[in-house]
Amino acid sequence: MILGGDRGVVPPGQTEPMTLGEAVTPETQPISQPQRIDRYVGQYAERAVDMVASEIRALFAVAARPEIVSLAGGSPYVAALPLDVVGDMIGQLIASQGATALQYCTAQGDARLRERICDVMALEQVRAHPDEVVVTVGSQQALDLMARIFIDPGDVVLVEAPSYVGALGAFAAYQADVVHVAMDDDGLIPEALEEAIRRAAAAGRRAKFLYTVPNFHNPAGVTLAAGRRHRILDICRRAGLLVVEDNPYGLLGFDGEPMRALRADDTEGVVYLGTFSKTFAAGVRVGWAVAPTAIREKLILAAESAVLCHSSFSQLTVREYLDTQPWYEQIKDFRELYRERRDATLSALSRMMPPGCRWTRPTGGFYVWLRLPDGINAKAMLPRAISSRVAYVPGTGFYADGSGAQYARLCYSFPAPDRIGEGIRRLASVIETEVQLRDDFGPAH
Amino acid sequence: MILGGDRGVVPPGQTEPMTLGEAVTPETQPISQPQRIDRYVGQYAERAVDMVASEIRALFAVAARPEIVSLAGGSPYVAALPLDVVGDMIGQLIASQGATALQYCTAQGDARLRERICDVMALEQVRAHPDEVVVTVGSQQALDLMARIFIDPGDVVLVEAPSYVGALGAFAAYQADVVHVAMDDDGLIPEALEEAIRRAAAAGRRAKFLYTVPNFHNPAGVTLAAGRRHRILDICRRAGLLVVEDNPYGLLGFDGEPMRALRADDTEGVVYLGTFSKTFAAGVRVGWAVAPTAIREKLILAAESAVLCHSSFSQLTVREYLDTQPWYEQIKDFRELYRERRDATLSALSRMMPPGCRWTRPTGGFYVWLRLPDGINAKAMLPRAISSRVAYVPGTGFYADGSGAQYARLCYSFPAPDRIGEGIRRLASVIETEVQLRDDFGPAH
Repeated sequence: MILGGDRGVVPPGQTEPMTLGEAVTPETQPISQPQRIDRYVGQYAERAVDMVASEIRALFAVAARPEIVSLAGGSPYVAALPLDVVGDMIGQLIASQGATALQYCTAQGDARLRERICDVMALEQVRAHPDEVVVTVGSQQALDLMARIFIDPGDVVLVEAPSYVGALGAFAAYQADVVHVAMDDDGLIPEALEEAIRRAAAAGRRAKFLYTVPNFHNPAGVTLAAGRRHRILDICRRAGLLVVEDNPYGLLGFDGEPMRALRADDTEGVVYLGTFSKTFAAGVRVGWAVAPTAIREKLILAAESAVLCHSSFSQLTVREYLDTQPWYEQIKDFRELYRERRDATLSALSRMMPPGCRWTRPTGGFYVWLRLPDGINAKAMLPRAISSRVAYVPGTGFYADGSGAQYARLCYSFPAPDRIGEGIRRLASVIETEVQLRDDFGPAH
Repeated sequence: MILGGDRGVVPPGQTEPMTLGEAVTPETQPISQPQRIDRYVGQYAERAVDMVASEIRALFAVAARPEIVSLAGGSPYVAALPLDVVGDMIGQLIASQGATALQYCTAQGDARLRERICDVMALEQVRAHPDEVVVTVGSQQALDLMARIFIDPGDVVLVEAPSYVGALGAFAAYQADVVHVAMDDDGLIPEALEEAIRRAAAAGRRAKFLYTVPNFHNPAGVTLAAGRRHRILDICRRAGLLVVEDNPYGLLGFDGEPMRALRADDTEGVVYLGTFSKTFAAGVRVGWAVAPTAIREKLILAAESAVLCHSSFSQLTVREYLDTQPWYEQIKDFRELYRERRDATLSALSRMMPPGCRWTRPTGGFYVWLRLPDGINAKAMLPRAISSRVAYVPGTGFYADGSGAQYARLCYSFPAPDRIGEGIRRLASVIETEVQLRDDFGPAH
């Protein structure tokens, strides 16, 4: 299926098979406006004027209650790590190398950690030199820094439809004009990409980069087919379009070997982003970027301006973990854990979802992208879902333009399989009620 | 003395007592330009076009060699911590609370850590609620976020003359128009601040905020006198000028109790920035901002866009340290350590510096601000100093406008006292040679 390509650029000549009911009109008003008078109104930077908390933030605070099955999160199941062993390792690290681990380091990041990062990337056929790596505060900082060095207000950035909410936030913070490009079950559609580039050119504009999550997409759960990868690279190369390849889940595939990264076939046209958040621990906030020389130099300078340097404490912890622990075996354990949860998710969806629902079938990673029956609005439904003790993320968060209301992201990485089943049972029941209401009264606003 | 106020705004009617030789013409050309062709030239954001590595960066790589006495750094002496005890503490933390410490957290930061941060600030008479605190990746991130939410290109920001290099970098990254305001041995001069506000208003502009380091200033080593603090707050309040109070060193005074923070007397007009970098460990990168409600909300949203969330691992480590270790006794130990190093610095300067040198006498913190004899350029002299195995930071780094070439920042926090003495002996000898050259051939360029 085309994944919410209803608002993204679709290939020419291809008609959009999904219809959207009236219910998808985006709600742009926050639920509540701050009551307090802000004496600094009028003094903020233009980029900060519209910075207001999303209305689903308050709901998620509620969703953290233990009686609620949260399929919203996106959190890795770090309790699967041997915490006592990791604790011992860190304790010894501080006792023996604390004077370095508790000190400032360079903005580029620890040199030996960067060597080990190159070893990790070799699993996806990326051949990089440690000098090409910049350590970042999670991948999110890499996204922020890429936006910072490339995006002037109004610049076009191409992203998938849907796209990762954190990337959209980073690009919006620099006032990008985000253009969505359609995906299907094989990931980004090359013809849609060509069309998006053509349209930008026709409008006298040139996109600054293409942002893509090729493996086990967040939120769509799909993977860019091997046969499309060269095609996408070719299109971008001909257009002089930089590719930002964001790959948090690449090592968490459930079948066969990790796929070959885009960066493996284009060292000058691709900026690769990686992270240890899902393969070790999100709480250390260690990610990285691999970039062509000139971009890398700017990333380092931008990182220095943003945070001076990353935490040595976190970096040396990851380095020590990679040096002394069976990290690849641990990744295999994570894969099995998440495969079991994926299976529980797909099985429960098949058994319980009412007619009119469709969903993707991920072969790795954390996410299923669920399309609700026509006329059902995932955002409007969320409070009722939470009342029924199940949470998800409405699809609107994954579009820059307010579309996606018929979709929901389900994340299966954190709850145990039986809890996933129970959550989907509750969700199915909520959807059924919504469908009944729709049939009785017409689509809700 | 007025501290390099030669280019800063000085009080009306006050003439600048220092003369600058020809030698201070700022060198704006980097020593080397990148040789490689950058295919992305023309695609960077405007803010990134001039982002090039500073020419002293390469020198500092050399300055890290052990035979060189580095008075450049700014690094705390973290080896004074009981590393085995801290290591044990962290090991136990991960073993018992790893599922939280290795997981994502909220963008505002850990709630219990924010409570403990309020306890720390109470030492400086700041009464804040944990809800008002945002945890940041060191103070540097707080500076970046403040710039991000307040500065449009060309906006005026007032800073001291000289000012902290990291703040200048953060403001420059958002294309601020930085205006320096003169200081003397009692810190920021109120009349100079009034004059700077007046001049901005006369030019039809309004400064977005005043950035100030009131205690043990980096790089100047001076402290804002108690008698001036209300005056500064009054001036800012009348002008509607937000104050950003950056206070990394406030608890590291050598005499008496910590001074009362500016934030203690104005909760709505002051954003207070703190950090554990100097009171615990720089390598955990845990700082914080306390801000009025509306600003705090924007800081949280901006932090989320920049890094998603801070490291739970670092935050819970600091929290555990504050909960279980004698942290205030450790700060007292740090004070004594740095006092001894300050004494070694001032004693060596008095004994060895040639005529024509002047310097500040810090009562806390890490820095002495040294004025070289007329016609001696600290930046031009640096390669010769490093050849003589001593390093410092040239004053130009602490000005947005290229001035400050007659000054050097000496940091005494890291080397042992005898090494400090040896470093200053070497530096004195280098300066004497420069003076001799100046006398024989005139000021160098």
